[in-house]
Amino acid sequence: MVNRHDIETAYARIAEHVRRTPLLESALPAGGAPISLKLESLQHSGSFKARGAFHNLLTRRAPPVGCATASGGNHGAAVAYAASRLGIPAKIFVPSISSPAKIAKIRSYGADIHIEGADYFDAQALCDAHVAATGALKIHPYDTPETIAGQGAVALEWEEDLARLGLARLDTVLVAVGGGGLISGVAAALAGRVRVIAVEPEGAASMAAAFAAGRPVEAPIRSIAADSLGARQIGALPFEICRDRVERVVLVDDDAIRAAQRRLWQDFNLVAEPGGATALAALASGAYIPAAGERLGVLVCGGNADLAALS
Amino acid sequence: MVNRHDIETAYARIAEHVRRTPLLESALPAGGAPISLKLESLQHSGSFKARGAFHNLLTRRAPPVGCATASGGNHGAAVAYAASRLGIPAKIFVPSISSPAKIAKIRSYGADIHIEGADYFDAQALCDAHVAATGALKIHPYDTPETIAGQGAVALEWEEDLARLGLARLDTVLVAVGGGGLISGVAAALAGRVRVIAVEPEGAASMAAAFAAGRPVEAPIRSIAADSLGARQIGALPFEICRDRVERVVLVDDDAIRAAQRRLWQDFNLVAEPGGATALAALASGAYIPAAGERLGVLVCGGNADLAALS
Repeated sequence: MVNRHDIETAYARIAEHVRRTPLLESALPAGGAPISLKLESLQHSGSFKARGAFHNLLTRRAPPVGCATASGGNHGAAVAYAASRLGIPAKIFVPSISSPAKIAKIRSYGADIHIEGADYFDAQALCDAHVAATGALKIHPYDTPETIAGQGAVALEWEEDLARLGLARLDTVLVAVGGGGLISGVAAALAGRVRVIAVEPEGAASMAAAFAAGRPVEAPIRSIAADSLGARQIGALPFEICRDRVERVVLVDDDAIRAAQRRLWQDFNLVAEPGGATALAALASGAYIPAAGERLGVLVCGGNADLAALS
Repeated sequence: MVNRHDIETAYARIAEHVRRTPLLESALPAGGAPISLKLESLQHSGSFKARGAFHNLLTRRAPPVGCATASGGNHGAAVAYAASRLGIPAKIFVPSISSPAKIAKIRSYGADIHIEGADYFDAQALCDAHVAATGALKIHPYDTPETIAGQGAVALEWEEDLARLGLARLDTVLVAVGGGGLISGVAAALAGRVRVIAVEPEGAASMAAAFAAGRPVEAPIRSIAADSLGARQIGALPFEICRDRVERVVLVDDDAIRAAQRRLWQDFNLVAEPGGATALAALASGAYIPAAGERLGVLVCGGNADLAALS
């Protein structure tokens, strides 16, 4: 398991390497109570994944062959970025559904990139074979304590900056879910202090499926956010952490995700990828209705969008 | 003239209407001292101009016909937004060089938009005729104390948030210049506390021309940033304020502006329009070289870019 102390330790370890991402307070809808947007889309490599990547590479020793990972894109970009900053070779296995923007970003960090397979699980199998053959350090995108503790640091930073800025503490945070690394870190950090609500695309609902079954099970994947939230099955460790710490799962459809992306662009000049806009979609679409006076935080977790598509 | 007290008054008056925009600390280049980016590109309507627009409409009474302005785009969007929030009719005169993104934004706020003329000065003449005929409240984009005091509020907010976040005070700020409304507000707010450096495109250097001539004079306009920084002549009041309060003008070419736009997107997932990236271009291109230990702030003043062009 991963607890708040583990996350505090991870936060201290990665602090000099990651960006302290800004908070933006805004009423949404206009006239309502201000919500706190945590702009993790402005993080190094374009998503929160840089936190877990650095935490792995700063706590586990990579052999000379370096590290390896499989990723729909953001985790791969984060590992490539962190490895590059730390002078460690990185090999990234990416399925063919990954966006050109993410593949270009991985390449820009100088990693050895291998594009093959229909989805994330295919890329994972290829990565596992590479790790078995070479002894490379495998960095799992979500199902390992180092990754989870690193991602959870975002919640501590959020709490700290709210206090520094003299802003009210949160009652509730909305967090998007793919394999569960981010939300399990956030839930482990905030459990007992802040309600944690999971948000999933209807077409990539691995946590909802796991909660319904009482264990991680495969869910069908078909969503505009599949390239970042498209893990077919939530991780075993994230499930253990979240089963008692996540209040509930809210589902949103692809139209709601697109509308939230447009809203972030039109109202804030912020670019979020579909997965990065999914948590906001729960609020903007009315799938999550806050109580009167409920102080809400929304984690904008990734910004590696295709600008041409967004325009 | 406009002094710090005027700006404090303006800041208090507009505070509930404008967005408190985030700060982002980041070393640039990597390994250097962290600079403070003020993300005014995330302001309502997409630029700092919302501050001056609200300050005008909150301090001057509009007749039933409403308000009117001429603008290359951002000021028009800001007036349209502020007028819409305050329930005041707005007519916006826009030259044909304005970007489709800005015209769409103005329309989205429900203003009456009139597109005609080759550049900003043509649109201004059409606006003046409309004001003379109807008695509408004219809101000048830069050459009036209400506008300048409103824009200057961004500097006070910046200082406040640095203190709240426990970050070091600035030695120097880099600010882009069009007609001079923003930089004169910033200079009036910060004079004697922080060095203010003007940054202009080589092809839209109205402040450099005025400093050289000792008075506002016309400068040739041909720059990628012309639709936001393309005033042919700096305002008389901005010139009076800036002549003793702006340390110097740094010029950047269009390639440097494009490179700064790309850098904001690739390294930060932030969208800035050319004028919004111009201040950063001075640092990123080496046109402005900070001294050892100099604490630098860069105002990212507008984000209304064409996403298709940026991609």
